[in-house]
Amino acid sequence: MSILVVGSVAFDNIATPSGRVENELGGAATYFALAASYFTDVRVVAVVGEDFTAEQEKVFHARGVDIRGIDRAQGKTFRWGGQYLDNLNEAKTDFTELNVFERFQPRIPKEYLDSNFLFLANIHPVLQAAVRLEMDGVRLTGGDTMNYWIQGTRKELLDTLKVVNVLLINDTEVKMLAGDTSLPRAARKVLTLGPQALVVKHGEYGATIFFREGAFGIGSHPFRAPALPIEEVKDPTGAGDSFAGGFMGYIASQGELNREVLKRALFYGGVMGSFAVERFGTTRLQSLTRPEIDARFQVFRELTHLE
Amino acid sequence: MSILVVGSVAFDNIATPSGRVENELGGAATYFALAASYFTDVRVVAVVGEDFTAEQEKVFHARGVDIRGIDRAQGKTFRWGGQYLDNLNEAKTDFTELNVFERFQPRIPKEYLDSNFLFLANIHPVLQAAVRLEMDGVRLTGGDTMNYWIQGTRKELLDTLKVVNVLLINDTEVKMLAGDTSLPRAARKVLTLGPQALVVKHGEYGATIFFREGAFGIGSHPFRAPALPIEEVKDPTGAGDSFAGGFMGYIASQGELNREVLKRALFYGGVMGSFAVERFGTTRLQSLTRPEIDARFQVFRELTHLE
Repeated sequence: MSILVVGSVAFDNIATPSGRVENELGGAATYFALAASYFTDVRVVAVVGEDFTAEQEKVFHARGVDIRGIDRAQGKTFRWGGQYLDNLNEAKTDFTELNVFERFQPRIPKEYLDSNFLFLANIHPVLQAAVRLEMDGVRLTGGDTMNYWIQGTRKELLDTLKVVNVLLINDTEVKMLAGDTSLPRAARKVLTLGPQALVVKHGEYGATIFFREGAFGIGSHPFRAPALPIEEVKDPTGAGDSFAGGFMGYIASQGELNREVLKRALFYGGVMGSFAVERFGTTRLQSLTRPEIDARFQVFRELTHLE
Repeated sequence: MSILVVGSVAFDNIATPSGRVENELGGAATYFALAASYFTDVRVVAVVGEDFTAEQEKVFHARGVDIRGIDRAQGKTFRWGGQYLDNLNEAKTDFTELNVFERFQPRIPKEYLDSNFLFLANIHPVLQAAVRLEMDGVRLTGGDTMNYWIQGTRKELLDTLKVVNVLLINDTEVKMLAGDTSLPRAARKVLTLGPQALVVKHGEYGATIFFREGAFGIGSHPFRAPALPIEEVKDPTGAGDSFAGGFMGYIASQGELNREVLKRALFYGGVMGSFAVERFGTTRLQSLTRPEIDARFQVFRELTHLE
């Protein structure tokens, strides 16, 4: 099965207690694509500038990711600078230069139209909805968003949510979206807005998936996957996108969609997020092997498994 | 098996988004004893004032808790007032009146000296150490502490930690005690200070137990128990003490101490914490049944169980 991701490709300047890097290849679509590439065929729709060269292409090609959908525009690629010097759980943004991303209009190559799965990374909800409309034949659509869209383009976001099957956001975003400080209550409200399932990412504590009653024919009990306590988090950038890549990538790799597949997908999401933060940028995601991934899956499983 | 808890018995004034109560029976030893009483024989050493009457005694007696070790002193019982109006995860203290608790000198009745297990709730580390010395025959000692002692009486606390087998504290306290912002690294440091195991309580995200290499002959892989997402948290007061009561109570109820027992104990801790917050004060802990507890244990187990 194949999965199409639409989102940002960027160059990041990142400072953490472990060091700093500049012009590091990043962006939600990049992290997602590399993480998902260990499970299934991945295609990317994004826009980059003239500073995106063969060096960056090589990173995608080495993982077999199809980047014919990455548009080359005049100007510079999206650039972001941020730091985690005081708090590894939350980035402090130093600068955001949208550059070519400001006028991003996703164009889907016709070779991508047969993609089985779709992931709408964190971009303007109107663009997300337009892509979703064009990819009408997909089996399942996952989506992300952020506080900026929840507060600034709420109406448009609510329209987009109607055509997203699985929404993946964090605790704060769920509560903000629902206007409710109780997570389970907020989750239930979000599940009335369109998605059949809601994945709440808890950072170092793992993630919980909530299901709408009757969704996927599998009942409504939530399921939680823990995260591995990581000794040294070098760079948290992209952890959430890598989680989404592991989650959606695993789902796309399976023939059918059932409760057990979604549960395992939640574990694989945590696994890919935990690898991502071990090195700066996408370094760790470029060099993994499937046995390494499955070994960590087993560690995660053992972490909460009772006889 | 029997367990002795030494700690505070108090009257609390509590305000949460769900309402407010005054003169509610509380205190760490109270929550601990009621939670543990569903698993094993419990004995309490504490001090109360003249305002502690037959009404409060009845709460303990109804659960079969032995309170011959609760000392009656002249004056008023320890009183605390706090609110969770803005944040259910952290109490804002309105007032603390130590009253008779200020001169608390734990006196252990001779009938308690054969207790098999000991829990040192959150009191001055010098008092904790004195009790531990007197109860030299116990099989396992659990202990709690807080930021106040970590910062204010560090030297005394470090002495106490040498004679505590399992320390149960929260994320912030672990990092403060170790002076390290990485939880797994901080946990490893704490395990060099005395305890063979460290239980880190993550609030609504559950808890993780870290083991010193070779402790209890069971290896050093951590284990994590998730918490149930609770729809309506009425009153978070005592959640941590109820967790400790479930954890230690279950351990005391088992013949032997092994990895599987400790893992299940971590789940039972989460179960008792989740019940405690469903009603104000100890109300919910007074009226449980063992089948209700075991049913929730199964829900917790299912929450992360992969086929």
